[in-house]
Amino acid sequence: MKAKIIITPKKAVVDPQGITVKKALEHMGYSGVTGVHIGKYIEIDLAPGTDKAAAQKAIDDAAHKLLSNPIIEDYKLEIE
Amino acid sequence: MKAKIIITPKKAVVDPQGITVKKALEHMGYSGVTGVHIGKYIEIDLAPGTDKAAAQKAIDDAAHKLLSNPIIEDYKLEIE
Repeated sequence: MKAKIIITPKKAVVDPQGITVKKALEHMGYSGVTGVHIGKYIEIDLAPGTDKAAAQKAIDDAAHKLLSNPIIEDYKLEIE
Repeated sequence: MKAKIIITPKKAVVDPQGITVKKALEHMGYSGVTGVHIGKYIEIDLAPGTDKAAAQKAIDDAAHKLLSNPIIEDYKLEIE
């Protein structure tokens, strides 16, 4: 079982990495890009037989406390 | 229209960030974690009316040349 967490900067937060990549894409001739947002992707392998609901709760908690900064970042958790 | 790119280190590549997060999760009492892989997540906003097939091709190219390091990273591209 795997948990996938996508952490992105909140819309109101300046994302210098995203701005830089947007400019780089334009310079390289890729047109039609109106915005770039850069975040983190975390994949957690869970031991087989882990209870899905309990894992969801524990990882949501960990994502909030350890993996993301809830002041400036949003996260999305998916368990499959 | 949005392009979503997930960049992860290849399985054979040492992922010190992932190892650190795994240890931190164990120390915080989250058991059952057998592995953690940390990658990047890039969301690209495309101008409305962009041709999906052309965008797919251009962004795949950009992901290979600019956004990822194909020697040590894999990427997955999704356009929606």
